[in-house]
Amino acid sequence: MLAEIEAPAGPLAAGSAVWLTTWVPTRTASPRNVLREDLPLPLCVLRDAALERNIARFQRYAEESGVLLSPHAKTTMSPALFGRQLAAGCWGLTFANCAQLEVARRHGVPRVFYANQLVGAADIRYVCDELRRDPGFDFYCLVDSVPGVRLLAARVADAGPGRPVNVLVEGGLNGGRCGVRDVGTAVEVAEAVRAAGPHLSLAGVEGFEGLAQYREPGRREADVRQFLGFLVRIAETLDGRGLFGVVGSAPVLLSAGGSAFYDLVIGRLTAARLSRPHQVIVRSGCYLTQDWGAYASLLGDLHRRSGSADPDLEPALEVWAQVLSVPEPGLVILSAGRRDFGQDAGNPVALAHVRRGTAERRPLRESGWQMAAVSDQHAHMTVPPGHGAEVGDLVALGPSHPCTTFDKWRTVYLVDDDYNILEAIPTYF
Amino acid sequence: MLAEIEAPAGPLAAGSAVWLTTWVPTRTASPRNVLREDLPLPLCVLRDAALERNIARFQRYAEESGVLLSPHAKTTMSPALFGRQLAAGCWGLTFANCAQLEVARRHGVPRVFYANQLVGAADIRYVCDELRRDPGFDFYCLVDSVPGVRLLAARVADAGPGRPVNVLVEGGLNGGRCGVRDVGTAVEVAEAVRAAGPHLSLAGVEGFEGLAQYREPGRREADVRQFLGFLVRIAETLDGRGLFGVVGSAPVLLSAGGSAFYDLVIGRLTAARLSRPHQVIVRSGCYLTQDWGAYASLLGDLHRRSGSADPDLEPALEVWAQVLSVPEPGLVILSAGRRDFGQDAGNPVALAHVRRGTAERRPLRESGWQMAAVSDQHAHMTVPPGHGAEVGDLVALGPSHPCTTFDKWRTVYLVDDDYNILEAIPTYF
Repeated sequence: MLAEIEAPAGPLAAGSAVWLTTWVPTRTASPRNVLREDLPLPLCVLRDAALERNIARFQRYAEESGVLLSPHAKTTMSPALFGRQLAAGCWGLTFANCAQLEVARRHGVPRVFYANQLVGAADIRYVCDELRRDPGFDFYCLVDSVPGVRLLAARVADAGPGRPVNVLVEGGLNGGRCGVRDVGTAVEVAEAVRAAGPHLSLAGVEGFEGLAQYREPGRREADVRQFLGFLVRIAETLDGRGLFGVVGSAPVLLSAGGSAFYDLVIGRLTAARLSRPHQVIVRSGCYLTQDWGAYASLLGDLHRRSGSADPDLEPALEVWAQVLSVPEPGLVILSAGRRDFGQDAGNPVALAHVRRGTAERRPLRESGWQMAAVSDQHAHMTVPPGHGAEVGDLVALGPSHPCTTFDKWRTVYLVDDDYNILEAIPTYF
Repeated sequence: MLAEIEAPAGPLAAGSAVWLTTWVPTRTASPRNVLREDLPLPLCVLRDAALERNIARFQRYAEESGVLLSPHAKTTMSPALFGRQLAAGCWGLTFANCAQLEVARRHGVPRVFYANQLVGAADIRYVCDELRRDPGFDFYCLVDSVPGVRLLAARVADAGPGRPVNVLVEGGLNGGRCGVRDVGTAVEVAEAVRAAGPHLSLAGVEGFEGLAQYREPGRREADVRQFLGFLVRIAETLDGRGLFGVVGSAPVLLSAGGSAFYDLVIGRLTAARLSRPHQVIVRSGCYLTQDWGAYASLLGDLHRRSGSADPDLEPALEVWAQVLSVPEPGLVILSAGRRDFGQDAGNPVALAHVRRGTAERRPLRESGWQMAAVSDQHAHMTVPPGHGAEVGDLVALGPSHPCTTFDKWRTVYLVDDDYNILEAIPTYF
């Protein structure tokens, strides 16, 4: 039944880069409608108009800020959305592991920022095979230790990509994730890259400041500013020692930026003083859909910090579920659970209630509906007296952190403002 | 690259029930090996020998207990595993929503216990279409309210399946999920089913006692026993009023049983006293792979309670990741995160460490390795001095709650005791 509307069914053949720019939506003349229960619930929907506005607004914001945009595409793992982001002008796309990279390459993504250490034997073989097969493939990955550089170089030497693999030295937050913790180690790593000359080339410096969003609000911004200063010190030191391997007029690349502090990243990294041109790359993934929780709050912080409403992004991602039961006063059971939405940044909020058989969306944001408990396939909502929900009614949920809702779905439905389904977008997690 | 080993690529055509019984593993002569890094990490693996033992042991346990087994197949959503469970003799398979049901039917599953309210218009159309199309399709779902019965009956009447839809009255835990909370409501619901005569048929009584596992340990068993007594009272009352719609020698069905308290379910439900034969159906999903956390602990409780080591089940599910970085003393960063394993029942435990280039698995269970933080694609492990981990080494993780690890993967790899890959098993979440 669902198969009728699923399209395109499988990954395209290798070498299909053209698809990303000639992609034409397969909108149907007689659309199915979410509110009319034309498809089984739960469903994950993307509001098309909000999505398009977010793509355009964030691209313009990056361009007006003088930086390149390489969105973290692990958020959606949806080639149809990769195509929209590339068509809007982004520099490349960012991925976090080899399985994701393979999806990108199968769908013709030409430039990849691999925002991770590249370590595994099979992973490195795959990257080198792609570099050899496709002279147009532009690839960047990270290094953060001398043993890591030596392992990568040895495996690249075995695989023979026919050209050096571009690497950036990763700087890391103390107590955080990957990345060197001091400038001295960064220099050692960069020297190891130079020693691996024919196999690796040092293209720049990278860091991920976003982990600071989990620290207490009063400390976050100071931690981010300090971390960005550390990345700039690494870049200036490596530059001073002539360790960057870029040639000709190619700029040194400085990259940071999740979806929480890109304003600070842009301000600090563009101000680095190097002996040659440098280019800043930001990598937000969540700007595309925003959310109804953590990133909505972080965007509010950003607007306050910058004294501007720019970028003006809107939540575009919703999960629609059905009322299965009203088994006790004050308790409503919905047909979506932890396998349908993320919980790592908080449970979804209730957005709207639609009486079965109608199309009117009654707002629920200030109504007192709370997701009190979650099962694999159910949400347990506590609701106030007079909630009005009956078996068969529809409820829209607004998730927090889009990455962990997207990855619950193989198909996400693009809808218009009336919840007509415009397209079925496949994901490849 | 991965595609070489993926099989079978897509769902089989409708009417392929035969596939489930004639399914032959596609073992290769020259297997790839997880420890040798033949495939990119992270990977989700199933230990074949443990899986086979669990399937055989639990089937025998159910048969020796005189009950039918309808495993909750939402755990794996893997038709290759459905086939093994059916081949071992289970009565049917259990699912929780229409998307899951559709996967089951596309792969030829002949009997489905739909352990949920069936509410949506498209869902009910799909079920009725299948009932009409395939006279061999045996289907059971739940009802828990008079409005729900009326909605289901009206939609079944519209869809015209050509035979009644079998329903069971669901009883629910107070403060829990779906299900009637008292016997009086159960009688009203059963009477509504009788009034919907040509469209619905009352086949039995159902409940899910498993939510009690989230209550404090001292209360759990008493709550479960009380709840099972409630289900039996419903069944005996409906039987006394002649409300079951079963005909001829067909038994009344009594079903409960997640993966935590099936011993109590079997003991109490088989002892119900009805005027006609009844048959108990248990529905554990997690017995198949067990786990390294919540269900390991609950199985220990069950063995203590029953004074027996039966059923003797083993953890079969592991996630293998790679050491990407050792950025600080006492901190190891792995290449698997919240998109690779479930966290709802606790983080995975570290099972084993394998030095890169070797095949020796050093046990980590008592080693002091702890998953201190988790990112989307990384695990942050705190490790003791002398931990011995280096970039490129492999680490096995043991998840808690298999359902929320399975659903992170489109392919799960079946391995032998040496971690040679025997088969690539697709999932359909």
